[in-house]
Amino acid sequence: MKNKKDNFCKELSLRQTAAFLKKHDNYIILTHASPDGDTLGSAYALYYALNEIGKTACVICPDVIPQKYDYFARKTDHVSAHNATIIAVDVADTRLLGALENEFGYIVDLNIDHHVSNTRYAKNLYLDADASATAECIYELIAHMKVNINDVTAKAIYTGLVTDTGCFKYSSVTAKTHMIAAQLYEYNIDAPEINRLMFDTKSKKLLELEKMVLETAEYHFDDKCFLLTVTAEMQVETGCSGTDLEGIAVISRSVEGVKAGVTVKQTGDDEFKVSLRTYPPLDASAICKNLGGGGHKGAAGATVHGTLEEVKAAILKAVGEALGCN
Amino acid sequence: MKNKKDNFCKELSLRQTAAFLKKHDNYIILTHASPDGDTLGSAYALYYALNEIGKTACVICPDVIPQKYDYFARKTDHVSAHNATIIAVDVADTRLLGALENEFGYIVDLNIDHHVSNTRYAKNLYLDADASATAECIYELIAHMKVNINDVTAKAIYTGLVTDTGCFKYSSVTAKTHMIAAQLYEYNIDAPEINRLMFDTKSKKLLELEKMVLETAEYHFDDKCFLLTVTAEMQVETGCSGTDLEGIAVISRSVEGVKAGVTVKQTGDDEFKVSLRTYPPLDASAICKNLGGGGHKGAAGATVHGTLEEVKAAILKAVGEALGCN
Repeated sequence: MKNKKDNFCKELSLRQTAAFLKKHDNYIILTHASPDGDTLGSAYALYYALNEIGKTACVICPDVIPQKYDYFARKTDHVSAHNATIIAVDVADTRLLGALENEFGYIVDLNIDHHVSNTRYAKNLYLDADASATAECIYELIAHMKVNINDVTAKAIYTGLVTDTGCFKYSSVTAKTHMIAAQLYEYNIDAPEINRLMFDTKSKKLLELEKMVLETAEYHFDDKCFLLTVTAEMQVETGCSGTDLEGIAVISRSVEGVKAGVTVKQTGDDEFKVSLRTYPPLDASAICKNLGGGGHKGAAGATVHGTLEEVKAAILKAVGEALGCN
Repeated sequence: MKNKKDNFCKELSLRQTAAFLKKHDNYIILTHASPDGDTLGSAYALYYALNEIGKTACVICPDVIPQKYDYFARKTDHVSAHNATIIAVDVADTRLLGALENEFGYIVDLNIDHHVSNTRYAKNLYLDADASATAECIYELIAHMKVNINDVTAKAIYTGLVTDTGCFKYSSVTAKTHMIAAQLYEYNIDAPEINRLMFDTKSKKLLELEKMVLETAEYHFDDKCFLLTVTAEMQVETGCSGTDLEGIAVISRSVEGVKAGVTVKQTGDDEFKVSLRTYPPLDASAICKNLGGGGHKGAAGATVHGTLEEVKAAILKAVGEALGCN
């Protein structure tokens, strides 16, 4: 495997990226592991667009693509890695390629991304850190190339936009995001159905887990801190794991007046993943640093060892100090 | 009180409505009872716009305005009803004026609305049934009048758009809705904070109720029907009522594979309000008609008398027949 430092990463403009796509052929389009709507929507929209201009392409995802994306994520042709042009979309770091990192991590020819944290591992990079989603970059590329958009391409791009912005809720949304959405409404995208699938559908087992987790609700520091616990037992009993659990952290910060929403999730016999969601002036990243973790101002985490009671005491101590309550 | 039939309702175009607003003065702007983001956002945006062109105006809401709208719903001046010009926004029927129906119901000079079900009770009506929210109509009026928009006006309009469309999720959204949102991003609207207030904040008591309600979860007909119960006891114990309970019906239809989500809410000793949410091919309205109720294809309800067990049996029988399971 080549070392990251051997690569010289060339940043391309929109025009240069479009020229790159027109020039090459036999594309392998890679998504990141634990795929979400943006990496998949971007990969498939690019795939359909490359097909439109007569290119051979395929999409490869390091993990199984969840069934809910079936409305645009169809089976693609096989493209041999020999002499292929490798594109990674919405993949900020080779590590995010998961099982595909060894095979493709250091031979990516073009990386299309919107993460400011991009590690510049590819030979060529089109990065728009102001874009709310990589799908926004893909839309602009397709529009620039004047490639015909069809309904399924529009659905894929719309899916990328909504999943990365919480359906236009997040701070990454700009006027441009809404302008692109308006353009996509020219196609038959069935936006309500996409949004139902992406946001308003949960599995029976997740609802069961939510019920159990709500039983553990604790309020601390004058109700300014809300704490939920997900034990290993709950995960086993409901069969929930991984992405199933992402929604739980959202609950922790949704209670009126709460400044710090904490979720403590058991990940081993004496190991817990603490997720913290905060509102200003609290800084989740600074609080989690005290526990050896990190993240963003509004959302951070840490892995803490000990019994459940010890871990809860540790995070509550850190939150209490930040709230000036200790 | 004048009879509805005494009124001849004149439908105005956008241009005529703008001319009406410029011509008159001393406006009383009425919202509907149990106010939501669209009626309030529309009323206040219109209020600020009328202020901009030197008109005297006030906003009157039949009920107390929830605190969460404080960021745009400021206290307005008093306008005497004597010789005032009465405008009702987002009020499809005089009944929706609640406590203000007797005083104002039949003297409304101008009604601005987007409900196809509008009962045409006002002297003049600007109705755009294709608009996703009345706030969309207000934006177009303000734009047509070339009135200056400031940040608080933009916040009010944005609030109307997002609350009536579930943050751009519903089938009422069009390209125009997104175009207007894009325009509003030119102002300092702090959309993430508005969306947090409108969608991602729930009270401690509501979370407590949700926990209790999830305990009642029942699956029927091969998991195609999901049923939740809200007893009077739960409402008393948590202190939840009215609008607090609206979110519960949403849970009932969010479970993967469920075609009929039922919420049975106790409203009296032997009285229950049944809310039904369905997905095609089920027709909620047709099912609820069997129980003496009605509504839309995807969302309907009925008030049913009997014990909880009798009411549950009645709705399950109707749902089972629609599913072909009886």
